[in-house]
Amino acid sequence: MGEDVGRLRVAVVGTGLIGGSILLRLHEAGVRVTGWDPDPATRAEGRRRGIDFPDELGDAVRDRDVVFLGGPLPSLPETLLTVAGLTGDRCIVTDVGSTKEAVAGFAAAHGLTGRFVPGHPMAGTERAGLTAAQAGLFTDAAWVLCPSADGLVPFRTLVGLVVDVLGAHVVPMSPQVHDRVVALSSHVPHLLAGGLAGAAADSTVRDAVVRLAAGSFRDGTRVATTPARRTAAMLLSNRDQVLRQLAEVRAALDALAEAVRDDDLPTLVAHYERAGAVRPAGSGREQPVHRVFDLDADPAGELAFVRSVGESGGHLTGCAVARGTVTYTGLRPA
Amino acid sequence: MGEDVGRLRVAVVGTGLIGGSILLRLHEAGVRVTGWDPDPATRAEGRRRGIDFPDELGDAVRDRDVVFLGGPLPSLPETLLTVAGLTGDRCIVTDVGSTKEAVAGFAAAHGLTGRFVPGHPMAGTERAGLTAAQAGLFTDAAWVLCPSADGLVPFRTLVGLVVDVLGAHVVPMSPQVHDRVVALSSHVPHLLAGGLAGAAADSTVRDAVVRLAAGSFRDGTRVATTPARRTAAMLLSNRDQVLRQLAEVRAALDALAEAVRDDDLPTLVAHYERAGAVRPAGSGREQPVHRVFDLDADPAGELAFVRSVGESGGHLTGCAVARGTVTYTGLRPA
Repeated sequence: MGEDVGRLRVAVVGTGLIGGSILLRLHEAGVRVTGWDPDPATRAEGRRRGIDFPDELGDAVRDRDVVFLGGPLPSLPETLLTVAGLTGDRCIVTDVGSTKEAVAGFAAAHGLTGRFVPGHPMAGTERAGLTAAQAGLFTDAAWVLCPSADGLVPFRTLVGLVVDVLGAHVVPMSPQVHDRVVALSSHVPHLLAGGLAGAAADSTVRDAVVRLAAGSFRDGTRVATTPARRTAAMLLSNRDQVLRQLAEVRAALDALAEAVRDDDLPTLVAHYERAGAVRPAGSGREQPVHRVFDLDADPAGELAFVRSVGESGGHLTGCAVARGTVTYTGLRPA
Repeated sequence: MGEDVGRLRVAVVGTGLIGGSILLRLHEAGVRVTGWDPDPATRAEGRRRGIDFPDELGDAVRDRDVVFLGGPLPSLPETLLTVAGLTGDRCIVTDVGSTKEAVAGFAAAHGLTGRFVPGHPMAGTERAGLTAAQAGLFTDAAWVLCPSADGLVPFRTLVGLVVDVLGAHVVPMSPQVHDRVVALSSHVPHLLAGGLAGAAADSTVRDAVVRLAAGSFRDGTRVATTPARRTAAMLLSNRDQVLRQLAEVRAALDALAEAVRDDDLPTLVAHYERAGAVRPAGSGREQPVHRVFDLDADPAGELAFVRSVGESGGHLTGCAVARGTVTYTGLRPA
């Protein structure tokens, strides 16, 4: 880990599966880190593991350089305000919520974009709580960060921490693009699985459908069995983009249905050839990214660059500040 | 294998992956079997394996008790007519096509329901041809048979052959129910995968969607990468039922989208709880089936019984004819 990153004093507030895994990795890496959770049993569990876990939130975050906010998505705006009030203007705050536009808008409305960088580590397991946390959870995972133009200084620090200590790939995006992408890459697939499994459940030949289920049916309904309440909350947390991306998928389905109705083999073949090609991308060839910016320059260019890396399917592998410049390295699809 | 089944003389016409696997298993089991394929190289390959493969179709099927028809779906009606013309009235014919209503209607129009029993073994691999065939392909697979009221005699023989020699589970159904079930359990999932992958392919954030793809996206697009021409032909072969079942799934999606739009958490949770329960069924508890019918009785009762077993998610494990009765055994969901 870089020398700068190693000197940081960090706190993690809300130490469930995600926050707890961040905390465990930072502690394991020798970073000075404190934890806090509203649940006293979780604080006791943290102390049992030899980690500093004050009873008061203020004692956990005061004098920290970086605070990670975990916990349930709806709690994050209030926690952000509370932590911002307990810390100084130079304290960097980031969160781990699964949608970003709402919390980014909240931060802007409260003048916090200069120190709050919305984040979303794309990792998880079926389990929950600090007892399920794993220090290696983020190794090689994608970690979205959504800096504002006035938040590039904290962003650069977080890139170092996320890449060098947490072992993840930083994917910078605007909050809007993030929510659009996850709607299509995660939320709408849950809706389709719910629609297919729901139609099967309501079918008069339900048990025969299950009996004769091909791999396509098992694949297409798998996530319909994840905990119903979590799926429902996830869909509602990104409501507008979920509905918008579902409309796109429905338009594609309309075109497919029309081709089936018209007995139009060439159109169907062309669609599946184009659609099938979408999957291997990203696992394909990548080209290196290397860009240097003047720290005194207009931040718009640097912001546009880092966002373009993530929004085009790439990620950052490093960020070094030295002699008045910042150097970004990364990979993007060739 | 039962003594009766062992005495049968069988032919397989069209020895690609499915027909070839039937042929290999029958040959391996010591059943007297001949093969035929329009492709001379395939006939040569069959002979190389020590199996009787005449050059003339008539020589392969004449004097046979049972003929299996393989080959591409559109070729089956014509092959059925040809084989029926080359064989006697007591020769049983069955096919392996993936949709059943059209070929059943064709057989009825040509007065062949008394000796032709439409079939659909639910097994396959990504490969094709006799060289890819495997004698064990059907072990524990579902094998749909669609007898008519006047086709119960050949049906009983086929149950013995399919269960005792080919090692599959016989799932009796009407042709209409079969096509409805496979539309929902196989064809519509391919449409949904095509819609999702198509929307992703057309998205302005396509590469980022792939980069951040959750398991739900990978599951939901997997079959969009199977050969485009085969997927398209499969969808068109069952056009009416595919469109009808897609409409059912779209209605379920409409209800989900409305709940998302209305921020209606309880409705979403209830839907996913009901939908999620559909998957484990069939892998759940089963109860034994045991029924005896008089061979002289009205066939309507026997036909209704065997169809009800398959259409309720069960299957037959045996069929024994003795002392003027037929005894069916099987399993169905408890």
